[in-house]
Amino acid sequence: MFYTDGKLQFPVRVERPNPVFAKALQQAIGGVEGEIRVAMQYMFQAFGARGPAKYRDMLLNTATEELGHIEMLATAVALNLEGAPLSLKEEVSADVAGGAVLNGMDMRHILSVGLAAMPVDANGVPFDMSHVYASGNIAADMYANVTAESSGRVLAVRLYNMTDDPGMKEMLAFMIARDTMHQQQWLAALEDMGGETANLPIPNSFPQSQENQKYSYAYFGHMTDGSIPEGRWTAGPAMDGKGEFVAMQSQPMGGKPSLAPARPDGGAQTGQTSKSGSEGLLGRIEGAIERNI
Amino acid sequence: MFYTDGKLQFPVRVERPNPVFAKALQQAIGGVEGEIRVAMQYMFQAFGARGPAKYRDMLLNTATEELGHIEMLATAVALNLEGAPLSLKEEVSADVAGGAVLNGMDMRHILSVGLAAMPVDANGVPFDMSHVYASGNIAADMYANVTAESSGRVLAVRLYNMTDDPGMKEMLAFMIARDTMHQQQWLAALEDMGGETANLPIPNSFPQSQENQKYSYAYFGHMTDGSIPEGRWTAGPAMDGKGEFVAMQSQPMGGKPSLAPARPDGGAQTGQTSKSGSEGLLGRIEGAIERNI
Amino acid sequence: MFYTDGKLQFPVRVERPNPVFAKALQQAIGGVEGEIRVAMQYMFQAFGARGPAKYRDMLLNTATEELGHIEMLATAVALNLEGAPLSLKEEVSADVAGGAVLNGMDMRHILSVGLAAMPVDANGVPFDMSHVYASGNIAADMYANVTAESSGRVLAVRLYNMTDDPGMKEMLAFMIARDTMHQQQWLAALEDMGGETANLPIPNSFPQSQENQKYSYAYFGHMTDGSIPEGRWTAGPAMDGKGEFVAMQSQPMGGKPSLAPARPDGGAQTGQTSKSGSEGLLGRIEGAIERNI
Amino acid sequence: MFYTDGKLQFPVRVERPNPVFAKALQQAIGGVEGEIRVAMQYMFQAFGARGPAKYRDMLLNTATEELGHIEMLATAVALNLEGAPLSLKEEVSADVAGGAVLNGMDMRHILSVGLAAMPVDANGVPFDMSHVYASGNIAADMYANVTAESSGRVLAVRLYNMTDDPGMKEMLAFMIARDTMHQQQWLAALEDMGGETANLPIPNSFPQSQENQKYSYAYFGHMTDGSIPEGRWTAGPAMDGKGEFVAMQSQPMGGKPSLAPARPDGGAQTGQTSKSGSEGLLGRIEGAIERNI
Amino acid sequence: MFYTDGKLQFPVRVERPNPVFAKALQQAIGGVEGEIRVAMQYMFQAFGARGPAKYRDMLLNTATEELGHIEMLATAVALNLEGAPLSLKEEVSADVAGGAVLNGMDMRHILSVGLAAMPVDANGVPFDMSHVYASGNIAADMYANVTAESSGRVLAVRLYNMTDDPGMKEMLAFMIARDTMHQQQWLAALEDMGGETANLPIPNSFPQSQENQKYSYAYFGHMTDGSIPEGRWTAGPAMDGKGEFVAMQSQPMGGKPSLAPARPDGGAQTGQTSKSGSEGLLGRIEGAIERNI
Amino acid sequence: MFYTDGKLQFPVRVERPNPVFAKALQQAIGGVEGEIRVAMQYMFQAFGARGPAKYRDMLLNTATEELGHIEMLATAVALNLEGAPLSLKEEVSADVAGGAVLNGMDMRHILSVGLAAMPVDANGVPFDMSHVYASGNIAADMYANVTAESSGRVLAVRLYNMTDDPGMKEMLAFMIARDTMHQQQWLAALEDMGGETANLPIPNSFPQSQENQKYSYAYFGHMTDGSIPEGRWTAGPAMDGKGEFVAMQSQPMGGKPSLAPARPDGGAQTGQTSKSGSEGLLGRIEGAIERNI
Repeated sequence: MFYTDGKLQFPVRVERPNPVFAKALQQAIGGVEGEIRVAMQYMFQAFGARGPAKYRDMLLNTATEELGHIEMLATAVALNLEGAPLSLKEEVSADVAGGAVLNGMDMRHILSVGLAAMPVDANGVPFDMSHVYASGNIAADMYANVTAESSGRVLAVRLYNMTDDPGMKEMLAFMIARDTMHQQQWLAALEDMGGETANLPIPNSFPQSQENQKYSYAYFGHMTDGSIPEGRWTAGPAMDGKGEFVAMQSQPMGGKPSLAPARPDGGAQTGQTSKSGSEGLLGRIEGAIERNI
Repeated sequence: MFYTDGKLQFPVRVERPNPVFAKALQQAIGGVEGEIRVAMQYMFQAFGARGPAKYRDMLLNTATEELGHIEMLATAVALNLEGAPLSLKEEVSADVAGGAVLNGMDMRHILSVGLAAMPVDANGVPFDMSHVYASGNIAADMYANVTAESSGRVLAVRLYNMTDDPGMKEMLAFMIARDTMHQQQWLAALEDMGGETANLPIPNSFPQSQENQKYSYAYFGHMTDGSIPEGRWTAGPAMDGKGEFVAMQSQPMGGKPSLAPARPDGGAQTGQTSKSGSEGLLGRIEGAIERNI
Repeated sequence: MFYTDGKLQFPVRVERPNPVFAKALQQAIGGVEGEIRVAMQYMFQAFGARGPAKYRDMLLNTATEELGHIEMLATAVALNLEGAPLSLKEEVSADVAGGAVLNGMDMRHILSVGLAAMPVDANGVPFDMSHVYASGNIAADMYANVTAESSGRVLAVRLYNMTDDPGMKEMLAFMIARDTMHQQQWLAALEDMGGETANLPIPNSFPQSQENQKYSYAYFGHMTDGSIPEGRWTAGPAMDGKGEFVAMQSQPMGGKPSLAPARPDGGAQTGQTSKSGSEGLLGRIEGAIERNI
Repeated sequence: MFYTDGKLQFPVRVERPNPVFAKALQQAIGGVEGEIRVAMQYMFQAFGARGPAKYRDMLLNTATEELGHIEMLATAVALNLEGAPLSLKEEVSADVAGGAVLNGMDMRHILSVGLAAMPVDANGVPFDMSHVYASGNIAADMYANVTAESSGRVLAVRLYNMTDDPGMKEMLAFMIARDTMHQQQWLAALEDMGGETANLPIPNSFPQSQENQKYSYAYFGHMTDGSIPEGRWTAGPAMDGKGEFVAMQSQPMGGKPSLAPARPDGGAQTGQTSKSGSEGLLGRIEGAIERNI
Repeated sequence: MFYTDGKLQFPVRVERPNPVFAKALQQAIGGVEGEIRVAMQYMFQAFGARGPAKYRDMLLNTATEELGHIEMLATAVALNLEGAPLSLKEEVSADVAGGAVLNGMDMRHILSVGLAAMPVDANGVPFDMSHVYASGNIAADMYANVTAESSGRVLAVRLYNMTDDPGMKEMLAFMIARDTMHQQQWLAALEDMGGETANLPIPNSFPQSQENQKYSYAYFGHMTDGSIPEGRWTAGPAMDGKGEFVAMQSQPMGGKPSLAPARPDGGAQTGQTSKSGSEGLLGRIEGAIERNI
Repeated sequence: MFYTDGKLQFPVRVERPNPVFAKALQQAIGGVEGEIRVAMQYMFQAFGARGPAKYRDMLLNTATEELGHIEMLATAVALNLEGAPLSLKEEVSADVAGGAVLNGMDMRHILSVGLAAMPVDANGVPFDMSHVYASGNIAADMYANVTAESSGRVLAVRLYNMTDDPGMKEMLAFMIARDTMHQQQWLAALEDMGGETANLPIPNSFPQSQENQKYSYAYFGHMTDGSIPEGRWTAGPAMDGKGEFVAMQSQPMGGKPSLAPARPDGGAQTGQTSKSGSEGLLGRIEGAIERNI
């Protein structure tokens, strides 16, 4: 259950409203790198948490914090839109770099919401909840969270570099700091659970003896000239300490797939209901093998 | 530029076709944890790679491998659908656990594709390319890739546990092994670039002096009773060695946000074009401060 | 800014876990009638509120309450999934009406989230934020909120009727009551702003003298036999007291639209770059008039 | 079954084509406030109507009218695009306010459709049919329709204010009038069915004795300082005449949710398969109660 | 502008309501092969038609017919849902093949619409208007229409084969006939415009002298063993009579792409801002050439 | 299984980077007319191919070629973005027609990907895989492919006409040639399978005797004035040689649909649970007939 005090976690100040920057800020609200995503992702991870309760609590705290970040950014968007032109003939502010304001705005800021934030990205594409990653595996989720905070901080830095409004820079400097912490936090949680060695491969509950271990630490090359890009991933001990990296060219271990002809009542063309003679004998045998005949 | 030999990377065998399992397998093709996602994600990361060429090459190889995994899974889906019922009155195979086949199938396997795979998830939701994470920051992308391979291996393990078809288990044991490697590979790439200390916080090109460092390593509690879930994230050195974790209760540093009234020609109600007396003096002052008046 | 106590607003009890009902409950989380929608809708309406502050506060309270409803339902889904079959051969519980469990489940409850809730509807379609209606016009938003709570209560009633689990009925009886209140609340807010007469037509800030008033209170019939379905909408004073309902057959006031031919360099077929003689003189003149030639 | 005469319901004239306004008009075609939505919404409500036939007929008439509004707006878009620049070097018309034409255009008007309308919103996001609200409950649907016409009229007013083309203002003045009528019409239908008292709470077929009536007319505060925004919704008789409004602080009636540990074969981490000691005794008991143990 | 008589184009009869078949029928309403798609596709093609008016009229007629097909199918869905179980314990009809009804139903038919049709496909995925293909090129559009009617007739045939209800078979036999005609109609329109020779390649308004004609009629092989699948496409005159088919192995004409390093203020990692020595001299030169240095 | 050589199929050169053209090029990557679509469409058609193997091989080759086209276009986008402004105050390049660069750019090229391509269209809408048409009917698929290559070539021509960069024109001239070939190729495949007469109507495996043949070659007029747009489709032999075109006015063969009243426990309003007297006798009888009473 949740509560609010109606106040902002950090002050949101806009000295020179810029409707084009309002559009850019939308990415941090409704983009895949944005705050709706992390708020909802941590929340659903918490709601579905199975295992030690402290991880659930840790997630729930940060989910709750992120709700306040949506609030800050939505306020920032609305303040940047104050004074935006509402008509095509309205005088265009000359002090906004990048040309005419209306061309660079999200027109739906005028048409759909009356100069406020929307849960969409910088192109007006609505956030969709398929980006809420909550796998039921806490280690996988921690990496998903590091990812979200990494792309989130990259975005915040780009927004910081894009604007020259002191108020906006101040707000973003706070958000960048929080993203720093959150990157650390999820990595710390992984360490708390035993670190990479204990947790990898994810899920660690599946016995590695049942995977096809010949290929568990092999980098596959698919270059036609047989070249391999060498790096930490082609030799030396694996990161989980459970294998040794090798590099090899990928080879087909299977044959050409061969499906049964289409069924007569299945809506195909009549020509598809039997196989013509264009396949060689080998192909048919391989197909048969794969189809277990 | 790409080439093919039309063969499967690993043999795909189905001993007892099961149309319900075909539906489950769709998650590994068109789900967010699936193969279209990783193929396209690594491909777009490679296509946009700026920096040392070896990372581009490494990505391109694995992108190319993943295309072959889509092929394997699509073949597995088609083979599991052979013999599926096409009509509501058709005799239902009794040897498929979980009851009537048609009820558990994806009906579009019959209606839309004539017993073949689709680029959709287990619920028939089409894959959408917003899940292709390629940020232009290689460290962020490596974590995104670890995430994809972690949720991918979790999914493959669940599919392995769900089926009892020996051919399907064999194929999945191979794919699980490849996911093991790919988890390792992206972590190895991070190490190749200097490891966590060198790369964090992401992006490491932004001077930390410009972020609001007071909050860069602080875990914020949002519980009304002031409790904090303790763990590796509340005390001790940060994971990047650049700070010390602290824990604190989150406090509002800003006031209540206060937007300007709606503009008369902006399509709002007339009552919204001026502020009523329901706000206290303090609220108005805070609002004014935030609006830089 | 937000807080939590980690507790449930109302107890969530499941006596007989039913994974099929877990799927049905998803509609109340991630469906268009569900709780994510209202939480986010009220939140964005509050964040963008321009006008008297009390409406913003009222919205923010209820947005915060709805977050707790997501939590309750997510808990209910997870509890209903405990004991769900994870494999196709697992013994199927006989006491679940409607047949085999796995066929009626959302397979992604197993494959993607490890027996927890997802932000998707009963068909696994992710919630998308385009359903967050926040128009910047508070009266329009109040009607949007009445709509959300009406379809939400209809859904909750259908879920109540679908289940026979006492714990679930108890939880839903609470949620139905809250939906009752919320329907009332938004209608009360309309009354608070002056009621229908003062607020209609929405937006009331547009001078009605500028609309084409001949058609402002006219019900248009489009039946080829000229019949009109009579009701409160075909005669008598309009609901806003500003007009008198009339009924009339709809007639075309414009001619056939006639666009200019395609431009030679516009990627059309050559045959489209001039108009053939199949149009009568009248059509060309009407077209010309509409194109202001 | 449907018919057409190929003519426009109202003349569509464009004196000064403006490709940027063409983009804005798209919101009225394919936006959530637009005409495809209402046409399809009323149509599906009519097609699924169960109950007195006159409501079905009333809906069908208006659905049919709205089809003609799509036609008018599509014509308006096409006429606004005549003369649009097709290349990046083409001379830019100086008489279009808001700067360079191409920057403000929807480029897909050139690239995808050859200067015609698309079923997308002002940001090029395609309309998706999840916005067709047809609940099977006619009162809920009437409110959904009032909502659609309210946001639709708000949008039309904003478009009217945005343009200074006399032809476009004339067309929009007609559409604004129709939106006025349609707001009235759906409210009149509610009155026709007995008005608010008879119809609320929606659905009125559910016995209120079965809801948790203690909370049916209670406004819940979630502010940490205990403040309540007072208004028509905090005291006095409820709008449906069936209760009395009260205001109260929201309190958790449930405990902390506690799910069972992850199952060993469910793809979680091994650490998640048992609960650690970080939970207090009280939490475990509450959890047990909720899980009905 | 449009009209209706409220009647069905063809009678819709259901002898034995089957809620599972109702779900299958949804594909013909809201699937990509369905009727909303063709109605809207032909409508937008008509609304944007530039060129001879008769094609616009032809399109508009058929668009109008297709609206009636949505109506027929929506009626068929609603009739198939009469008698559907509303609760999990309700007695399950034994005469529906394929097992328990509720498991095979679209639950939203109960939860969201009260036993009526929705604008979604058989998996409950809402139709989205990006499938409305209207390119501004009439020949391209005619092929798009043939495609729509081909996949539509394939779907209708599969539905016909799936059901054994005489009323449904009768309705589908009519719809299949209409799909036959519409396939013919669009091909006839192509012939009317001069046939394949005149219209290909599409668009025929682009001078073929400006394309890279060396590759205009060449089938490219990408098989690593150099094999080519022979057919009508590898030899003989091209279908448009403007070239001669040849077959060849595809060879890279470009080098490895090489992008400039990331910019220091662009949010990348520091390691990406210069290129390491892992690229050979040749690669750098090729890159430079492509980057026009 | 797939391979790569990391080289471009055709050189990609950009003389004057233009970030606005980068946005336009996105349509050819992630638009419905773009290369992701054809690559994936041909790939899934190949993976699910049932029937003669040569068609599978033919499809697989071209799918593999199209992957390389994504690569070329992604490279073109990245090269066009080099030098793009990263901040709102940055000096705006004067030599780009159409005004300020930033206003015309896709801001996500800066914010989300660091100056690289994304799998989205020119409006930033992500490609979604529902556009991968693979019906299981090879003739339907060939028409789908002709459509894709027709709209693809129309798009490429428009891009060619939009740019004046020699490198870009050269690349597009190559792609236009490939689209020419691919249009030919799919038509040649249809001929290879017997041509239109043999293949139509699609699917040709359904006995035409079972369709309602009275309407199989009839053009239906829906104009209220009874006019029919005459053309090849209104008279003469049908294109498949199996019928004779006729034209007729469409007439309702069914009555008004009449659904049963809503069920008392189905969440409707009480007024919907019985039918009022507003229907005439005839309507009720027709309804009864259709409901088979």
